[in-house]
Amino acid sequence: MKENEQRENTNTARVTYPPVSVIGLGMMGSALARTFLKEGHQTTVWNRTPGKADALMKQGAKVASTVNEAIAASPIVVICVLDYGALHEILEEAGELLVGRAIVNLTNGTPAQARRTAAWVTHRGAEYLDGGIMAVPQMIGTSGALVLYSGSEKVFQTYQPTLKGIGGVNYLGEDPGLAPLYDLALLSAMYGMFGGFFHAVAMIRSEQIKAETFTSLVVPWLQAMSGSLPLMAQAVDAENHQTDVSSLSINQTAFSNFIEVCGELGISNELMIPIQGLINRGVAEGYGADGLSRIVELIRNPVSV
Amino acid sequence: MKENEQRENTNTARVTYPPVSVIGLGMMGSALARTFLKEGHQTTVWNRTPGKADALMKQGAKVASTVNEAIAASPIVVICVLDYGALHEILEEAGELLVGRAIVNLTNGTPAQARRTAAWVTHRGAEYLDGGIMAVPQMIGTSGALVLYSGSEKVFQTYQPTLKGIGGVNYLGEDPGLAPLYDLALLSAMYGMFGGFFHAVAMIRSEQIKAETFTSLVVPWLQAMSGSLPLMAQAVDAENHQTDVSSLSINQTAFSNFIEVCGELGISNELMIPIQGLINRGVAEGYGADGLSRIVELIRNPVSV
Repeated sequence: MKENEQRENTNTARVTYPPVSVIGLGMMGSALARTFLKEGHQTTVWNRTPGKADALMKQGAKVASTVNEAIAASPIVVICVLDYGALHEILEEAGELLVGRAIVNLTNGTPAQARRTAAWVTHRGAEYLDGGIMAVPQMIGTSGALVLYSGSEKVFQTYQPTLKGIGGVNYLGEDPGLAPLYDLALLSAMYGMFGGFFHAVAMIRSEQIKAETFTSLVVPWLQAMSGSLPLMAQAVDAENHQTDVSSLSINQTAFSNFIEVCGELGISNELMIPIQGLINRGVAEGYGADGLSRIVELIRNPVSV
Repeated sequence: MKENEQRENTNTARVTYPPVSVIGLGMMGSALARTFLKEGHQTTVWNRTPGKADALMKQGAKVASTVNEAIAASPIVVICVLDYGALHEILEEAGELLVGRAIVNLTNGTPAQARRTAAWVTHRGAEYLDGGIMAVPQMIGTSGALVLYSGSEKVFQTYQPTLKGIGGVNYLGEDPGLAPLYDLALLSAMYGMFGGFFHAVAMIRSEQIKAETFTSLVVPWLQAMSGSLPLMAQAVDAENHQTDVSSLSINQTAFSNFIEVCGELGISNELMIPIQGLINRGVAEGYGADGLSRIVELIRNPVSV
């Protein structure tokens, strides 16, 4: 009975704090390794350029002298390298060493790259989990760092306590392409919001008004406007873009004011012109009475040049 | 004493519910007139095309047969017409009738148009308040409808109870150009956010994932990311874009993934390419170590073509 209890405790400890290997010690990889060390994992690190491991060694990391030594050291191998080219060099070098291991790939890439790599890794007897880190390195280890996962649910479930050390987790499904797809989609939404904000601040600054004054208005405004995103998503899913609120035709008129004002202020319209282009195209194709959500369909069906 | 009290009450009533004239009965003008009627104002309306006043007449509006009759009926004249061309026709017709009146102009236009009109109106003995309505007609009369005002502070203060009937109020200053400037800046921020969202949803839909599923992630994500806008505004005001978090160079690398993925998915990159263009330009001009806020300066100083 006592023995059983102890074994259970040991199992829990093993699952909660398994040895982890981190391959790739750029800003993000180093932040990951630091976090695993802080959480109490035996952490083995490797980087193609050796000097990057020095600080981590002082914090208790084992520094592997070859990539295969790093892979052999842990049941879970977290890889965060520059690109999929670097990733595949590493995986090919490992060969049979991969068998039975959990490969957690946090390298930035595309859904197709993730799916191809998952197939390759699985074929060699390992399990593959893909992750998209929605945070900058400084946020790693805090609840503010969201990481999206897709691929092997077994790996996600088994190592969830370890993965939660990095930040918030969100498992999207077995298709390994989902994490990079959602990652890039969320980033594009962020870039759009930032772009609109930069354009707005450029307008405001051209009249010598402090950007900070404007921010106190624009942040609550954008948060209020984000309330209409779920309704537009519903319109997209229903493929019904009819609206009695704000049609493409109404928005088309509003845009002529932008273009005129930005001309007066001497600033560039380069971030607004493409949105105007899509609105104009929607009206020209007969969707003037539709709401702005129609633009999703226009982006999905580009005009062939 | 009692007499005094009564006079005070009468004054308050007069200031709180003065007669209001509404000129221009498009969707927005009609919504404004309906709201004034509901609030208990004696409301006189006029529209160039007469039929539009019929519904309002049933709700108790006085329908003026000429624009001058409408202007003569109230100390405060709210004008919401198609554009400044239509506005000036009306004002010129009114001539001496303008003397002593408060002209509240809610017509969409540019800061320069508002300033010219304010000068013109003031020269003719009236006071001018410009307003930018940050709402669709359906929201008028609710606290969700924000209206930005600039120009005569006296008009704003005197008629604030009346203006609050329309929605939330925000007085920006004596310069009549501020309301249209902030109005268009807030709209451009909104269009940017919507554009990024549409691009993101187009990516997600191309993989047959429901937009609604994605929305539950993207709304909190954008709200979290909007937390970085005040910091970027500070960088703009300080003209110091240095960062140790997310440099233009780092963002440049992220963009190659977008372009590749959108190619794979067959969707258009037209909303992302201009953002990439600004990031690339920043790096090329030697600002690779700066944060994204540098983009404000690039928009303000377009490359001459």
